[in-house]
Amino acid sequence: MKSKITLKDIARELEVSISTVSKALKNSEEISRDTKEKVQAFARLYNYKPNNIAISLKNKRTKNIGVVIPDIVHHFFTTVIRGIEKYANAKGYNVIVCLSEESFDKEVINMEMLANGSIDGFIMSLSSETQAKKDFNHLKEVMEQGIPVVLFDRITNEIDCDKVIIDDKLGGYLATKKLIEQGKRKIALITTDDYLSVSKARGQGHRKALIDSGLEVDESRILKLPTMEMDEERIRSFFDSIEFDAVLCVNEIFAVFSMRVALEKGLKIPDDVAVIGFTNGLLSKYANPSLTVVAQHGEKMGEISAQMLIDKVESEKEEETFQTKILEPTLVVRDSTIN
Amino acid sequence: MKSKITLKDIARELEVSISTVSKALKNSEEISRDTKEKVQAFARLYNYKPNNIAISLKNKRTKNIGVVIPDIVHHFFTTVIRGIEKYANAKGYNVIVCLSEESFDKEVINMEMLANGSIDGFIMSLSSETQAKKDFNHLKEVMEQGIPVVLFDRITNEIDCDKVIIDDKLGGYLATKKLIEQGKRKIALITTDDYLSVSKARGQGHRKALIDSGLEVDESRILKLPTMEMDEERIRSFFDSIEFDAVLCVNEIFAVFSMRVALEKGLKIPDDVAVIGFTNGLLSKYANPSLTVVAQHGEKMGEISAQMLIDKVESEKEEETFQTKILEPTLVVRDSTIN
Repeated sequence: MKSKITLKDIARELEVSISTVSKALKNSEEISRDTKEKVQAFARLYNYKPNNIAISLKNKRTKNIGVVIPDIVHHFFTTVIRGIEKYANAKGYNVIVCLSEESFDKEVINMEMLANGSIDGFIMSLSSETQAKKDFNHLKEVMEQGIPVVLFDRITNEIDCDKVIIDDKLGGYLATKKLIEQGKRKIALITTDDYLSVSKARGQGHRKALIDSGLEVDESRILKLPTMEMDEERIRSFFDSIEFDAVLCVNEIFAVFSMRVALEKGLKIPDDVAVIGFTNGLLSKYANPSLTVVAQHGEKMGEISAQMLIDKVESEKEEETFQTKILEPTLVVRDSTIN
Repeated sequence: MKSKITLKDIARELEVSISTVSKALKNSEEISRDTKEKVQAFARLYNYKPNNIAISLKNKRTKNIGVVIPDIVHHFFTTVIRGIEKYANAKGYNVIVCLSEESFDKEVINMEMLANGSIDGFIMSLSSETQAKKDFNHLKEVMEQGIPVVLFDRITNEIDCDKVIIDDKLGGYLATKKLIEQGKRKIALITTDDYLSVSKARGQGHRKALIDSGLEVDESRILKLPTMEMDEERIRSFFDSIEFDAVLCVNEIFAVFSMRVALEKGLKIPDDVAVIGFTNGLLSKYANPSLTVVAQHGEKMGEISAQMLIDKVESEKEEETFQTKILEPTLVVRDSTIN
């Protein structure tokens, strides 16, 4: 049995991009006659079948959905997967998960691998490196090949596709308002650098709530870590450097650790320090005191993403329209804030 | 292009279970002659091929590893994935993850999908339903097709393949001994039914430690839940029904919840009640008090699994030898036991 030749193989052999091969096989006017002839001759020689992708989508579906996410350490992504599985399984689809581990290269490699006939479409949340680089060619490429993509949570405006996000700005606003209402005035924010779309939006909501309440934004009370990864030392020394009576964190791990530091300092929660995190996960629920959080409704987000993707996969329409669904975050009030 | 027929398709068409189709195709004596003939005729008619991987493996490797695990809610499995990714990526392999969600059918469907040319080998931990059913035909099938399999954590003795486990009996023993040394005599155990191999072994270690210390095994202090899934109500009423001065749990979620129930009862941890769980995850680390655990070394387990699998994939040897690697659990002592 002769192994199947792929777009990627042709691209490598002829030293052109996958995108060029794809366009040449479609007889695109963007590609020179010379290149088109070369690509088409090569494809014929090796019996290339425009395989599993554009054409096969019409003839035969794999009934598999590819999910590419940054990590599974954060509970949020595991709940999104649960939602995707739930909807997809009910519709007879299997789910394949690949992790980018916040790496641009891994994201590209995973997508190329899955786009090679294994899946009908992608559901993905961008790696932090992709958001920092702003290079989305790998997304454009699969979409050009007729593979639909749904982005959730960490999205980009530079790609036209279906998107599902939570109103992160509102989440940051609601949480900060809650703390202000409880009489807190020295509210610390532990977040990441702004290139991460969700952190940026949450920070904006936080600022807006402060300003709306006539409070000043004290930059020294904002800690921006390079990624969502835990850095105990930096968080500890941040708390040593400021006065604070409340903490808002962009994930639940930062928040639960902030509670620990506060308790170690002999502070009472929520009386001396109130704490709110993002993500309604197991950590928040079983922390002691239990943690008030901005629920991101990950399972719902997963279900909607799967629904949007499967609708596109099964749609017979030629023309494409895209929509962005915005879910509303809700505050789940527990013992780390005053009830 | 004719679409390929799968086990799932045959099962659906003939209205039998996937397990029945799989056994019928193997001519199993468990299946009636009538059903076997029906299934085999159907498979012939639609040109069912158990997969093309055996041949293609010789010609071309995919450089992908398929990982099939029960869930990603428990931190243990996420750490194993991290270990697999680490080793596999360094060797130039991608990792594809599929979740069985503790379902036999999903495990079979996922394996069949991946075995269809997408991966070079499997790393897997059995679903609870598979362990309960003791049906391992889907494993036998892929192995007969030349696809190597490495089982980790939840394994079976009925399949000859490479395996990586932790000495769970020793883990249960060490934890229980620790509690006894601290003067605890009424040690509760929260586990699952014995069909789950890891729970069974942990329970055996627990018993051995009690007996070695001249203590009696009081069955009323053992709660066996049907699965690893959280059941707050049953755990609460279990604690209402017994006297206890220590708790050992087979996962960290049960353990952290047990601490909460103890605290609600006004008991002091660790003085009135000491608690130990399995899995050294985020929950244990950030719980308050922090939780003493039996570390299962998931990342190490993942690395070793990946190494064993890749060695098999890249081996030129014809004859097969299998080994089982047993890792030693270690006790990570924190504030939920006396230091």
